[in-house]
Amino acid sequence: MQIVIALYDRFTALDAVGPHQVLAHVPAAEIIFASERARAVSDETGTLTLGADASYADVPHPDVLLIPGGPGQSAHMGDGPFRDWIIEADKTTTWTTSVCTGSLILAAAGLLTGRQATTYWLAMNELASLGAKPVHDRYVFDGKYATSAGVSAGIDMALALAARLTDDDTAQAIQLGIEYAPNPPFNAGSPATAPPRLVAAQRAASRFPNP
Amino acid sequence: MQIVIALYDRFTALDAVGPHQVLAHVPAAEIIFASERARAVSDETGTLTLGADASYADVPHPDVLLIPGGPGQSAHMGDGPFRDWIIEADKTTTWTTSVCTGSLILAAAGLLTGRQATTYWLAMNELASLGAKPVHDRYVFDGKYATSAGVSAGIDMALALAARLTDDDTAQAIQLGIEYAPNPPFNAGSPATAPPRLVAAQRAASRFPNP
Repeated sequence: MQIVIALYDRFTALDAVGPHQVLAHVPAAEIIFASERARAVSDETGTLTLGADASYADVPHPDVLLIPGGPGQSAHMGDGPFRDWIIEADKTTTWTTSVCTGSLILAAAGLLTGRQATTYWLAMNELASLGAKPVHDRYVFDGKYATSAGVSAGIDMALALAARLTDDDTAQAIQLGIEYAPNPPFNAGSPATAPPRLVAAQRAASRFPNP
Repeated sequence: MQIVIALYDRFTALDAVGPHQVLAHVPAAEIIFASERARAVSDETGTLTLGADASYADVPHPDVLLIPGGPGQSAHMGDGPFRDWIIEADKTTTWTTSVCTGSLILAAAGLLTGRQATTYWLAMNELASLGAKPVHDRYVFDGKYATSAGVSAGIDMALALAARLTDDDTAQAIQLGIEYAPNPPFNAGSPATAPPRLVAAQRAASRFPNP
């Protein structure tokens, strides 16, 4: 089972590495990071580089495709080789997935039209404008498409995906293996629970219209 | 404020990238991945490489030191340049921190003797044998030492550390920014809640004595 995680400049590292940490422990999974060519790809912070070992051309038919989000997503909303590869790869995937604003790339490629999907909390209206039906949930499965909310939500989605790729026992063993019993020191991870002034500040600073 | 994350072969990627995703958004933080020399470092799975942009010699005095865990930890429990660097760096850090079995490296270097600390759930007895006082918690602060439980716990610890480096508002804004409102599909992330047969299987397969 080939799982390809796409990397592009200014991606969000946890979007890619969270699911990788989960899916790498799925038996028989072969995970490959890919980009337009094999190279070290810089994340949104500029202080982290992750290696892409393959070009998109090297992996035309992944079983599972995962598109991370990040500020760099905005450069991939139009026609181009990356979109062409996604559309072709999607034709034969078992699962086509995204984390955070990665779903905007899928939606812009026409793959989420009319489908229930989710994305980063600031990008929900943007997702709707691209033809998907936004759902406020940690992750959403609609057919073979699995999309997740912002950044850290990719871990939750990947565990649910691992269960579908294998079984509940295997997914739970992976969860135990990464000791994923989260207990954040604050309850500020959602606009519904964060201090309203912080939510307002991030809405005001958002790169998305009508966030 | 210089934050150095150490990378060694067969580290666990989420141990390093989870905290990076949090700490990179601390204002005035400069995060540097370091290894014995600048290079691409392979994680425990062999399918992920993270770039170390500096050698340990390049960063002798980090303000914050973070040691991830992973199977490769076992190669760093004895004397050597990595330990020498940790001991020297620790003399001037504001915070010396670890994720997962990274605390075993700190403990073996003598930095956690008599201190409360935590580690990966399968390594708690190993941590005790190295002179620390194991605490079953998501993360533990004792003086300037902050240690966290397995893998994903580094995200929780990093948020608590971000609050100490700045203030609660800043840490909560970071949490909102990474939409960290975790909601895993199973409740199997701790030996206290996972199906007992899965816990027993991982104890039996553990590389640690008396896990």
